[in-house]
Amino acid sequence: MSHAFASLILALSFGAVHAQDIKVVYHVNTGVETAAGILGNVRNHLSADPSAKIVVVTHGLGIDFLLDGAKDSKGREFSGVVSDLSGKGVQFRVCNNTLISRNIDANKVSMDAKIVPSGVAEVARLQAKEGYVYLKP
Amino acid sequence: MSHAFASLILALSFGAVHAQDIKVVYHVNTGVETAAGILGNVRNHLSADPSAKIVVVTHGLGIDFLLDGAKDSKGREFSGVVSDLSGKGVQFRVCNNTLISRNIDANKVSMDAKIVPSGVAEVARLQAKEGYVYLKP
Amino acid sequence: MSHAFASLILALSFGAVHAQDIKVVYHVNTGVETAAGILGNVRNHLSADPSAKIVVVTHGLGIDFLLDGAKDSKGREFSGVVSDLSGKGVQFRVCNNTLISRNIDANKVSMDAKIVPSGVAEVARLQAKEGYVYLKP
Repeated sequence: MSHAFASLILALSFGAVHAQDIKVVYHVNTGVETAAGILGNVRNHLSADPSAKIVVVTHGLGIDFLLDGAKDSKGREFSGVVSDLSGKGVQFRVCNNTLISRNIDANKVSMDAKIVPSGVAEVARLQAKEGYVYLKP
Repeated sequence: MSHAFASLILALSFGAVHAQDIKVVYHVNTGVETAAGILGNVRNHLSADPSAKIVVVTHGLGIDFLLDGAKDSKGREFSGVVSDLSGKGVQFRVCNNTLISRNIDANKVSMDAKIVPSGVAEVARLQAKEGYVYLKP
Repeated sequence: MSHAFASLILALSFGAVHAQDIKVVYHVNTGVETAAGILGNVRNHLSADPSAKIVVVTHGLGIDFLLDGAKDSKGREFSGVVSDLSGKGVQFRVCNNTLISRNIDANKVSMDAKIVPSGVAEVARLQAKEGYVYLKP
């Protein structure tokens, strides 16, 4: 029993201290003109640390690159890059409060993104409850 | 004794893992033109997660919406919104280094805000010592 | 044995809970026009908390103040301030991906800075593996 206890505690401690893969939330609320650079950051991050688990949480103007037909300054659609990163395990999340306040139909959101109730609450939850570290690109 | 030890350790571990309410520091150092959006973020955050404990730490230009008579772009005073959020448990903190370097009288700071010696040191302390997660709106 | 176990766990737990000095990563990816303010933040941070261990990780335009001959808006070289902060224990890191993509020779990087493979991966690693908290100035 005392041994089982100790094992449990050891497991908990190691769970906290030795989680192997780094989990990072990228917090994005800046406009589409910043998106190409941010997606480049994500790509470079994965190249440097292929086991990193990256979740990109967007709200406000930050959601725009995840809307259908969104293009960068050179007229290229973001959908290809998003789909490619998604295939590499990167997750994209879009704030529903933003969709409501900006009157944007949820059907316009990329198939590669998931809608969450609140972007800011999601950014906090991932850190507080799921062990993510923070990065504002 | 061994049992007491284990219980102590268990308590420590659970203290780290199962803190119930999420604590978030909003770090604000951008000007008054960004304040309405940021206060909207805080309000949406609380709606999505009513038990969240939110501290807004301001320095540099970020303190301006907490000065007497500060108004948004539509001429509405921020004091009403700040007071409302304060009543819901949101805390506002203003950097004293900023007051000194910008030569602003401490009497001009909102009654709903508390003055701290250094905004950046406070942002770090809340994370390192009080279990807050970070959000830069 | 059971006692040794418990001691090990206790040490692990206390390692997590009672680290004495605050460690902060300053994440900098904004241009040279923001650097004087950021270095002022670092200086104020150290004044408020002299035991703070500060690492400034730069990438993108954020590396510019760490290149040879970089000057602020008043024509003063950044090298003096960087050197002074470096002498106080502040560490500066520059992203090698940025050097490559912007075609900048590594020899142009300040002697007070260290080159790391990826700025974003370093920001995440310091938080996830070395107990740093985050601050975006």
